[in-house]
Amino acid sequence: MDASKIRNFSAGPAILPPAVIERAAEGLKELRLHGHEPTAPGIGLSILEISHRSGPYDAVTKAAERLCHEVLGIPQTHQVLFLQGGASLQFAMVPMNLRREGKPACYIDTGAWSTKAIAESEQLGPTKVVASSKGTGFDRIPQMPAGETYADASYLHITTNNTIYGTEFSEIPRAEGGVPLVADMSSNIGSRPFAYENIDLGFAGAQKNLGPSGVTLVFVRRELLNEAPVGVVPKILRYATHAKNPSLYNTPNTFGVLVLKLMLDWLRDEGGVPAIAERNRRKATALYTVLDNSSLYTPHAQPGSRSQMNISWTLGGAPEAERDALTKQFLAGAERRGLSGLKGHRSVGGVRASIYNAFPEEGVHELCSYMEDFERGA
Amino acid sequence: MDASKIRNFSAGPAILPPAVIERAAEGLKELRLHGHEPTAPGIGLSILEISHRSGPYDAVTKAAERLCHEVLGIPQTHQVLFLQGGASLQFAMVPMNLRREGKPACYIDTGAWSTKAIAESEQLGPTKVVASSKGTGFDRIPQMPAGETYADASYLHITTNNTIYGTEFSEIPRAEGGVPLVADMSSNIGSRPFAYENIDLGFAGAQKNLGPSGVTLVFVRRELLNEAPVGVVPKILRYATHAKNPSLYNTPNTFGVLVLKLMLDWLRDEGGVPAIAERNRRKATALYTVLDNSSLYTPHAQPGSRSQMNISWTLGGAPEAERDALTKQFLAGAERRGLSGLKGHRSVGGVRASIYNAFPEEGVHELCSYMEDFERGA
Repeated sequence: MDASKIRNFSAGPAILPPAVIERAAEGLKELRLHGHEPTAPGIGLSILEISHRSGPYDAVTKAAERLCHEVLGIPQTHQVLFLQGGASLQFAMVPMNLRREGKPACYIDTGAWSTKAIAESEQLGPTKVVASSKGTGFDRIPQMPAGETYADASYLHITTNNTIYGTEFSEIPRAEGGVPLVADMSSNIGSRPFAYENIDLGFAGAQKNLGPSGVTLVFVRRELLNEAPVGVVPKILRYATHAKNPSLYNTPNTFGVLVLKLMLDWLRDEGGVPAIAERNRRKATALYTVLDNSSLYTPHAQPGSRSQMNISWTLGGAPEAERDALTKQFLAGAERRGLSGLKGHRSVGGVRASIYNAFPEEGVHELCSYMEDFERGA
Repeated sequence: MDASKIRNFSAGPAILPPAVIERAAEGLKELRLHGHEPTAPGIGLSILEISHRSGPYDAVTKAAERLCHEVLGIPQTHQVLFLQGGASLQFAMVPMNLRREGKPACYIDTGAWSTKAIAESEQLGPTKVVASSKGTGFDRIPQMPAGETYADASYLHITTNNTIYGTEFSEIPRAEGGVPLVADMSSNIGSRPFAYENIDLGFAGAQKNLGPSGVTLVFVRRELLNEAPVGVVPKILRYATHAKNPSLYNTPNTFGVLVLKLMLDWLRDEGGVPAIAERNRRKATALYTVLDNSSLYTPHAQPGSRSQMNISWTLGGAPEAERDALTKQFLAGAERRGLSGLKGHRSVGGVRASIYNAFPEEGVHELCSYMEDFERGA
């Protein structure tokens, strides 16, 4: 099938802009310095073939780091790192590095990903869930707990966007009393402006808005690196190790860092975060409007907690006995129109549309039209 | 500069076969199933854009796993895993998972990489160096220690090839008394047939003979996964976690696994490990012959311990006062002939030629000619 005709709503690894794929393929054949134009000097080698300690790679990683500050807006007070192991490794590295003697690690539980983070922390030391929306099937972001509930915390951990349940913090909260705020931003980083200054340590697997799998962006307030971890932490798992010689303590995923840089180049060329935020708002509004005007579709997330990146719904308006069959019919019909990857996660069921930065507006309109057609004709 | 004219002797990430780069670039544009021919069905999406839980990716990772058994010769008794974090993360994961109460972790120290592995182990528990060539500047592989020196060990760890010092175990030893043997094979896996059956847990960063950085091949005897680790080990850092749903517990480096698979396809197409071993033997012999016949060049590694992958030498035959200047002159002259990446590691100095599987024989002959010309004319 022609790639240009498929609309891939996969939750991640997710669709990338065609220009990024084109440039990544060029870099695979021969890395060019100072831009992508055919006039830019080529180094005679693929990005895959050069040492991570070479000048050309240094230019790539330094540019990626700079773009994280300039395009995403991560403050200069924070060290940017490109690590491996995804958010899942961060779930362990965060408590290993940031636990402080006698102070529990505190979490806001908004579903699958925070639940995994909590489980890793619980093994390592005292852990407290200070707010949760588990009781209502993770259909919302719980209210920010009062400062006293986590006043003695080593840190407070949030997941800013929840791919499975389609919920999202409308803004980054401020943790009270000088408690460090840790934010897993894997699925909405770069989608709109964020108050990064509220975050002491943030991380994001790159495979949604930042490029390929196998690279994890970490940003950490430098002051946080001064305190030694409690207990034994292997050198490779300490943030301070990676900050000392940024992202070069061991061999990084060099190709992944190049693609992350290309994604940030693209984001800047599209008008930066403010422009993409406006586009993301339009995309999400279009879909939620169809859902809210429908008597067939029921969005999972409550208003006020709705994600602009992952939109989950069930065919809740259908008679219960027919729901499963109708959902299957919906998904099969979507595939026939080239609308792919819409099957909801098994914990929510139904349908999920992941519409990250690179997902085109036309694709959302095609899905909206199909949804209306299906409701009319089904 | 034209890529085909550069001979890149970098220690890694290292040169890849042009066919692998070509196919990787194709997979970046559109992943094809069942082969690389234009007739193979394309899936309409880049390898970067598909879920790691999708059918097409499943085909990629399963094929890569199968090729590790079939082409490399890893026995079916061992589980193959594709992890992240490089050998450096394995230096921590090995003691975290394999330490047993009251039993020291034992290491054979052959220089930089085993030294790093030893340092991570020392933090985590009792650690013993049972053989070392430190006293002679790591110029050889020490004699295999007697069984009684490590009889009470949790495991015995070796580094099969040492990139910096240019030494290599001529064969994989057998650990006595049922002590598990752990082997860091990052820089010579796939270069010749190995007695994998002697190894209980092996690992290799892929960026030398297996493809790109950001993927670590781990193979582990399944029985070894049954025993629970001593102390608290985060779930993401347990081998058993990754073995349960092989290499899919968290999002893997999907592109990296594809390139690893393409490297193994290439290795098989070249005649497999026996054919590449013969070629590697010829390449190394050509270089060592020039070194041994020279009064200017002094190879670092002692006969019997010489690496076929990384060959290090100094200009030891030159008067001491002139050595540095002469080495610089040697390296500059090499660059002018398109022979790149030859600067030795700072701990040995001099010159180092890394000639992994993908390094062409002609390139070695060009280097040999240059060395002879330099010695005659310098």
